[in-house]
Amino acid sequence: MFDFEPIGRKAKEASRSLALAGTEQKNRSLSLIAEELIKNKRAIIDQNRLDVKAAEAKGVKSSLVDRLYLNEKRIEGIADGVEKVVSLPDPVGMIEYGETRPNGLRVLKQRVPLGTVGIIYESRPNVTVDAAALCLKSGNAAILRGGSDAIGTNTVLVTIMQDALEKAGLSRESVQLLADTSREAANAMMKAHGYIDVLIPRGGAGLIRSCVENSTVPVIETGVGNCHIYVDSSASIPMAIDIIDNAKTQRPGVCNAAESLLLHRDIAEEILPKLKKRLDQHKVEIRGCEITKMILGSCVVPATEEDWATEFLDYILAVKVVDNLYDAIDHIRKYSTGHSECIITDSFEAAAEFQRLVDAAAVYVNASTRFTDGYELGLGAEIGISTAKLHARGPMGLKELTTIKYLITGNGQIRQ
Amino acid sequence: MFDFEPIGRKAKEASRSLALAGTEQKNRSLSLIAEELIKNKRAIIDQNRLDVKAAEAKGVKSSLVDRLYLNEKRIEGIADGVEKVVSLPDPVGMIEYGETRPNGLRVLKQRVPLGTVGIIYESRPNVTVDAAALCLKSGNAAILRGGSDAIGTNTVLVTIMQDALEKAGLSRESVQLLADTSREAANAMMKAHGYIDVLIPRGGAGLIRSCVENSTVPVIETGVGNCHIYVDSSASIPMAIDIIDNAKTQRPGVCNAAESLLLHRDIAEEILPKLKKRLDQHKVEIRGCEITKMILGSCVVPATEEDWATEFLDYILAVKVVDNLYDAIDHIRKYSTGHSECIITDSFEAAAEFQRLVDAAAVYVNASTRFTDGYELGLGAEIGISTAKLHARGPMGLKELTTIKYLITGNGQIRQ
Repeated sequence: MFDFEPIGRKAKEASRSLALAGTEQKNRSLSLIAEELIKNKRAIIDQNRLDVKAAEAKGVKSSLVDRLYLNEKRIEGIADGVEKVVSLPDPVGMIEYGETRPNGLRVLKQRVPLGTVGIIYESRPNVTVDAAALCLKSGNAAILRGGSDAIGTNTVLVTIMQDALEKAGLSRESVQLLADTSREAANAMMKAHGYIDVLIPRGGAGLIRSCVENSTVPVIETGVGNCHIYVDSSASIPMAIDIIDNAKTQRPGVCNAAESLLLHRDIAEEILPKLKKRLDQHKVEIRGCEITKMILGSCVVPATEEDWATEFLDYILAVKVVDNLYDAIDHIRKYSTGHSECIITDSFEAAAEFQRLVDAAAVYVNASTRFTDGYELGLGAEIGISTAKLHARGPMGLKELTTIKYLITGNGQIRQ
Repeated sequence: MFDFEPIGRKAKEASRSLALAGTEQKNRSLSLIAEELIKNKRAIIDQNRLDVKAAEAKGVKSSLVDRLYLNEKRIEGIADGVEKVVSLPDPVGMIEYGETRPNGLRVLKQRVPLGTVGIIYESRPNVTVDAAALCLKSGNAAILRGGSDAIGTNTVLVTIMQDALEKAGLSRESVQLLADTSREAANAMMKAHGYIDVLIPRGGAGLIRSCVENSTVPVIETGVGNCHIYVDSSASIPMAIDIIDNAKTQRPGVCNAAESLLLHRDIAEEILPKLKKRLDQHKVEIRGCEITKMILGSCVVPATEEDWATEFLDYILAVKVVDNLYDAIDHIRKYSTGHSECIITDSFEAAAEFQRLVDAAAVYVNASTRFTDGYELGLGAEIGISTAKLHARGPMGLKELTTIKYLITGNGQIRQ
């Protein structure tokens, strides 16, 4: 039986001192982490090569091996990300609000860390460092459970971070990695009520569903984005083509990429051939409804019910011609994962109706869904993009890794 | 098998139109509810008498029967509570924050309802109306699951509310009551991921634990308050006695009442006899540590380990003499439920240390823990007091029943 308790207990201990650490000390530990990552590039890469080889030997898909793979440039990118976290403002200690009540009680609402944050993710070693850095800056202990293929690389990365933490006078246990990558260990983490204050799964829909179904600790669902673009009859066709192209092909493997396109029937015939030409530059496969197929011909793969619900994360776009705005909204309500939804229109009313009726983390008018991102929205680095409604919705930055406490100060007030 | 789906589906339908209802319409429905409650007093009381008789016949504890019992005055109080919700500001539609990004994108963060709120509670019919009113005002559909002893009363109350909703032009299904009060039905509600956006259990520790352990929908834990008062060596003794008396006896059955008292050893001998005299007026039973027993004698019941962890909700106070501030904080860390904790002191440093080191929804200096309440803290009516850290901590008012969505408006922006 995997015993999570010792890990949970150490994290709780560490989280208490981390919650009280000042911004300067936390920043010092982060700068040291960035420095040590660079200094230890060779050791990281050596270990990473072994992980990559083992994954290839096991027949892991090449796109997944690529996520696992590190080289000098990628390590520099990771270290650079840590330095960026140093420069972000520290939310801990911020007074969100304050008031003196009629009876003289002074009420302050102060931001404090959540405590211990659990992160379950797949074999992307950059998440190991990114997530730990955001947890540290926000004063939270982190318990990381990465995928088994990356365990060697993750172990090296966490040891480097722990050494840096110790140098900065903080507890090594501020960041812990589950050495056991079994499903059993992940399940124990999900049940660690009292030890883990929030669990953030980062990965595919299956991982997230498993966390939601098995956890007794609070979970924030992240990152599944079946994002739609609806092109209204009044839309500017060139603008629509630019936005669709950007949202689909600029980086198709991420959660804010567009997956489904809804076209008002009045512009379908005009836009589809032009759009096809543009998307052909990236060899985008079109899975279309009957009308799409009629307009574009045999290059269109007939869309199945499943296609409307799928986050392809690939050069594939589902296309449906709809009768009007409300049909588009109904379709989105049925298939949306609540991430990012977009209308392209020149109608003031259609834009307003769309933003009013569509419920998602981000609802766009005339802009690419790719902007749903911490930096792009001005929040800084993010630990994930929440598609949940509680606590955080959209990009989760440092502030979303904190909670509040009321500090109430009186001089003998009692309740009447 | 209990089938939750039809209820969940109706709630989702209703929540969509409710989310778009204006403040005036929502207020009109609330005023109608208040009016109709008064008009139908007789019918409510008649049904309530039957519930009360049945509960008495079943041998339900008299304190619980009292919670179930309604009379004219109590119904007027409930209606008055609904009118108070009318007067609170509507959080829906509020722009929390807005900015124009360097690329010209306009980003607004707007408050929107959560969707459907589930409430599981015990046999207190006032919760039926209070909770429904707060959900309505914040634009959320409510699914209520009250205790079986109150099912007759609750059915009448919900029918009155549904009639009022219909008169105001809103969907009857904006408020639904589970007619089935079995454990199976409650469990189905806890598993209704996709239909219920947040589940708020209101009741004892057992109910809340069951929700946390069984739910796949997000739960906000509320209301378990093992609240401590620590009296520092520098405290004003008369102030300490006033605050302890108020926190323990003004309303002992509520979650913000004090349950445990920690006394610095330097003042224990002075304060204990005086405190005992004051608490004797309410026949408060003292369950004390060895030293407390030595000072006060045989009237003290020896405290067990269990007593330190118990929310008595009664005229019982656990008392422990500690060596210093840090021992008090250690004790609180061990036994606190994270609700309300208080220090009484004249030392600036002790006050600051206490507020810095104790992590709870409300951390007091020199005031009664009884102030942890929506109205007392200036938030208005509350649907519960969250002892969780995610989304809401402390009193949960209307704002805590909402989430945000990003409204992002551009003129063709694409990501570089």
